[in-house]
Order: sequence, then C-alpha cells, then structure tokens
Amino acid sequence: MFKQVPAAEALAGKYPEWLVFVTAANPDGPPNFMPAGWCMVCSSEPPMLAVALGHGRHTAALVQRTGEFAINFCGEGQHDLITRSGTVSGRDVNKLEVLRVATAPGKLGFAPLISGCARAFECKLRHVYPSGDHNIFVGEVVAAHIAEPAVSNLVNFGGWYSAATPATPRS
Amino acid sequence: MFKQVPAAEALAGKYPEWLVFVTAANPDGPPNFMPAGWCMVCSSEPPMLAVALGHGRHTAALVQRTGEFAINFCGEGQHDLITRSGTVSGRDVNKLEVLRVATAPGKLGFAPLISGCARAFECKLRHVYPSGDHNIFVGEVVAAHIAEPAVSNLVNFGGWYSAATPATPRS
Repeated sequence: MFKQVPAAEALAGKYPEWLVFVTAANPDGPPNFMPAGWCMVCSSEPPMLAVALGHGRHTAALVQRTGEFAINFCGEGQHDLITRSGTVSGRDVNKLEVLRVATAPGKLGFAPLISGCARAFECKLRHVYPSGDHNIFVGEVVAAHIAEPAVSNLVNFGGWYSAATPATPRS
Repeated sequence: MFKQVPAAEALAGKYPEWLVFVTAANPDGPPNFMPAGWCMVCSSEPPMLAVALGHGRHTAALVQRTGEFAINFCGEGQHDLITRSGTVSGRDVNKLEVLRVATAPGKLGFAPLISGCARAFECKLRHVYPSGDHNIFVGEVVAAHIAEPAVSNLVNFGGWYSAATPATPRS
C-alpha cells in the first residue's frame, strides 16, 4: 500500500545518498571544491559520472570554464570537512587553504584530489545539462584513484554521515 | 595517499548505490518496468529526479514515447524481484504479469507503482540527455508516495542487496 505525500516528504527517505567533493582548477586563482550529494554513474563505456550542481556555485562556474573537474568520494572521517565546507565560499577565500584541506595532484593534475577521500575520478567535462534549479555536469572519467590504505565511502543518512553497512549480512 | 587504478576498479567500490524500478505505460500493450541503479535527485524546486537508462531498453523507449514514468525505490524484501527482473524483456512478454508483480495505480495513473517499494515518484519527462552508452532521463516529480506501513530502501552493495545501516550510529 502507498500513501501520497508531498515530494519533499517522500524524498526525505531517499537515504543513504552519496557524498562527494567536486574539485576544479581556477585559471585566476586557487582551485576550489564543494560538497555534493547528487551524483551517479551515467555510462559504462566510456565510464562517465554525472553530478548536479546548483546554479551560481563558484565550483560549478570553474568546471564550466576549465572543462575539467574531479569527483572525490568522501571517506570515513571527513564528517567535519563536509560540514565546514559549506561555511565559506571560494569566491571570497582560498577555501582549501582556509579549511586546511590536504590535496594530492592526481594523474592529469587539472583538479586536485582531496586527501582522505575513498576514491577519486578525474573527469573531462562532456556535457552541461539544465535540470530545474541545478545543472547536471557529465564528466568522462580519464583517471581513477583509490585511497591506499583503503577508506570506506562516507554516505549521507539525512544530514549526518557514516559509512554504510548492510542491515542483512551477505548469506 | 591515492593509487591510480582502472576506472572500473575504482567504480567497483562506489557502493552502496540506489536501486529503483522504472515503470512506464505502453500505448500498445501492457506497462513495463526495469531495474536501474543510476539515479539521483537533480533539482529541489521543482523536485526532479534523473535516471540513466541504457540505449535500446524497452522501458526507456516507452518513457520517451509517453513522456511519463515512475521511479520506484526498491524496498527491503525485493531481492528476488530485482534479480528476476533482468531475465525477461517487456518486448517479448507482459513482464509484470509473468513475474507476478503487484502494482498500484498511483495518483496520475500513467505509470504503475510497484507494490513492496519503499517510495515512488510519478514523473513527467522533462529532458532526455545523451551520456555515453546511456541516456539521462530527467523527470519532474508530480506525485510522490511512501509505503504504508513504512519499508526500508533496498540498496545495492555490489551485486547483492540489503537495507543500509550506518556503521557508526548517530551520537
């Protein structure tokens, strides 16, 4: 049986949901990053990822300008960084520096990888598609990385964050 | 520290990932459904969902033809249905009937809701965007439903399915 409810109420139960940091270079200044939760795979061959970013976001503008970005899957232990990453804008400050975020250069080097993330995908921007109050950025994965030693993905359980374990262990 | 690996290897650790059934009406026959794992929210206002469907899928063709579909979040207990739903095609048989899937009509009635799902969103198709070997179908949520009594979302842990619980309980 189903009960009709407002969309927001039904969506409030969508969790667990992915948590990623999107990073991008800035031709006129320091690279920037932002957290995002709306992300999915959207092609196997070539491997592609889609992430929806709100209009007017500084990182979104940098991705569009440079045509390159990285999607970093948040890792266990990054709770605080996720919370703090929304408190300042890269338009005003060097956000990576202010928040003391350690980065690694990646393979292609156009967008930094964020240390502590579980996995990271350097992407070439292939499409920017309008979708309501966000744009969907579609990137082709051109280099992929995993944390070493391994780190569990941190996922969103609805405003709080944890690695996820199956309720029913694999039989 | 990061280690560069093939994209497929890094993506193998993407889980947990959503699991949904996409349903669509068929002007010339019975409605159909298919499982999908690549789904995300892509707008708050209006509420919109995006789902990536492979080229040539029968359900994808029906969505494109009718301009309407429903996204049903799989519910705990639907393991078997997910597995079986890939074994026959709606091109050949009445898949809902053959697999004995109980449905509910929803509010707008254009695409059936699948009983046992945790939540369901009736959507008007707003965009179909190419992305590699899939298309991204963007739907505006026009009616939303939750299971009553409540059902936990079933998510994909990498070829096996379970509800997800936080590894670290909320403090």
